[in-house]
Amino acid sequence: MAVLLLMPSRDTSDLAAALARLEPGLDVRVWPKVGDAAAIEVAVCWSHPPGSLLDLPRLRAILSYGAGVDHLLGDPRLPEGVPIARFVDPGLARDMAEYVLTAVLAHRRGIPRYLEQQRTRTWDPHPYRPAGTALVLGLGRMGLAAARLLAAVGLEVRGWSRTPHEHEGLTCFTSEDGLAQGLAGADHVICLLPLTPATEGMLGRSLLARMAPGSQLVNAGRGRHLDEQALLEALDAGRPAAAWLDVFADEPLPGDHPFWTHPAITITPHVASLTDPAAVAAQVVECLHRVRSGELPGNLVDPVQGY
Amino acid sequence: MAVLLLMPSRDTSDLAAALARLEPGLDVRVWPKVGDAAAIEVAVCWSHPPGSLLDLPRLRAILSYGAGVDHLLGDPRLPEGVPIARFVDPGLARDMAEYVLTAVLAHRRGIPRYLEQQRTRTWDPHPYRPAGTALVLGLGRMGLAAARLLAAVGLEVRGWSRTPHEHEGLTCFTSEDGLAQGLAGADHVICLLPLTPATEGMLGRSLLARMAPGSQLVNAGRGRHLDEQALLEALDAGRPAAAWLDVFADEPLPGDHPFWTHPAITITPHVASLTDPAAVAAQVVECLHRVRSGELPGNLVDPVQGY
Repeated sequence: MAVLLLMPSRDTSDLAAALARLEPGLDVRVWPKVGDAAAIEVAVCWSHPPGSLLDLPRLRAILSYGAGVDHLLGDPRLPEGVPIARFVDPGLARDMAEYVLTAVLAHRRGIPRYLEQQRTRTWDPHPYRPAGTALVLGLGRMGLAAARLLAAVGLEVRGWSRTPHEHEGLTCFTSEDGLAQGLAGADHVICLLPLTPATEGMLGRSLLARMAPGSQLVNAGRGRHLDEQALLEALDAGRPAAAWLDVFADEPLPGDHPFWTHPAITITPHVASLTDPAAVAAQVVECLHRVRSGELPGNLVDPVQGY
Repeated sequence: MAVLLLMPSRDTSDLAAALARLEPGLDVRVWPKVGDAAAIEVAVCWSHPPGSLLDLPRLRAILSYGAGVDHLLGDPRLPEGVPIARFVDPGLARDMAEYVLTAVLAHRRGIPRYLEQQRTRTWDPHPYRPAGTALVLGLGRMGLAAARLLAAVGLEVRGWSRTPHEHEGLTCFTSEDGLAQGLAGADHVICLLPLTPATEGMLGRSLLARMAPGSQLVNAGRGRHLDEQALLEALDAGRPAAAWLDVFADEPLPGDHPFWTHPAITITPHVASLTDPAAVAAQVVECLHRVRSGELPGNLVDPVQGY
């Protein structure tokens, strides 16, 4: 009985070491060296080759290495009936919230502008933006953590989600009408949605056109939430005034992409929230124990909802 | 009876307009157009020419336009017996705290490095620094607000001040021994001291040498707290790893200053906390009413302590 690490684009050594510490003797295999495929009970996946999970006849659980599962559900040839679980970790949500706060404060304080001024040895003070209103799109663990942290430092925070939510201290919206209300006058629009067919391209012409003058778009969801061409046109029109992006349709962002040199765009290389291999290892071990005793894994994903 | 705005380096129009709104008919004069000097009861000062306050024979209060009063007390020819008050405003402390938080998060998240990578179209993710320990030097209104905000976002916060302080949730140090304890292992050292003869140059060789590897110095106090040459040498030695500076011995920072191009230094042009003219106007009017009824102004400065 074994665990397969199926993450072609990632270094698996930290995760393998953490598993060895937690469960000495556990049979851990690293794709493509699968060995006896019938021994694999649990597969830990990140951007696996589509169809590759079909080769595991006794697979009992599929675990995502990250919070998002779009990389899993995008595979049209998933094994039927095998439960899919995502990685849930308070540290992941806390780090995401801090990334969002960093982006929001940097915009309010004009940090990208001052760093550019430093390059040209220019001393040009300008007023900072007052604490305003943030709209968080997506109220899962990540979105909620970000909303709470922004509220804690004095922003007025709104949230929007596909399903209705209620959270103390947070004005929650749902539906298309609610989105319009949430966007009205928001100084920061922060995308922390799951990527599903319903949310793909949601940061498009219609939404961007309703952003306030001077506002900031923060995308720390997935690159495909954003219509990149629409963003370029919207920035030219001044709504939003700036975009702070951690995720892109193509990663790494291609060298000739117009985002790199756009004066209103700040780029970070998908670092908002980094999975802690030790925390993943603990969930893998817990999942193993559960499936071996006939239980379902925790943090199950609904493939129809997409999260 | 009149108020004099004695701020040669600053535009006084917003403050004059705010005073006119608050106290219509108030006689407001802008230096150097003093008119009848014997009519001046209150002078609002920022970097006044030394000795210029001696020309006001019936002056009853001197107000600082900012929180710091080093620009006032540095004048060896102040009129004797005229009380000096500083500007105190919750907004000023809140804005300072946010500036400090921005600097701390930007360091933890490597924002200056990512903006430099963006210039060279480089996609190079690196781990962020975990929430660590901050030492706030100076526990006046600014320092305390910064300490509380940093604690609210999860840092372990220590404070150091010349006089002993006690604050819940904050490990407070005083004296030279306490400074050594506060510096030990601190990831961020944040200067929000008043500038006095006792604190001038305090960010010098001895203190910098005790900063932790990987740590960040934030100076939002005054430029003369920092020994600039000592900082350059300390950065070369790797302690601290980075400095985030808002204030400088010479402002604007001269174009040929080595700080501009140092890869470990981030420069903002004295914008951490900007005085709100409307809030100053309210304190000027209150001060006028007090001195006219024979009271002392609020927020008095002790010229011996220097704050």
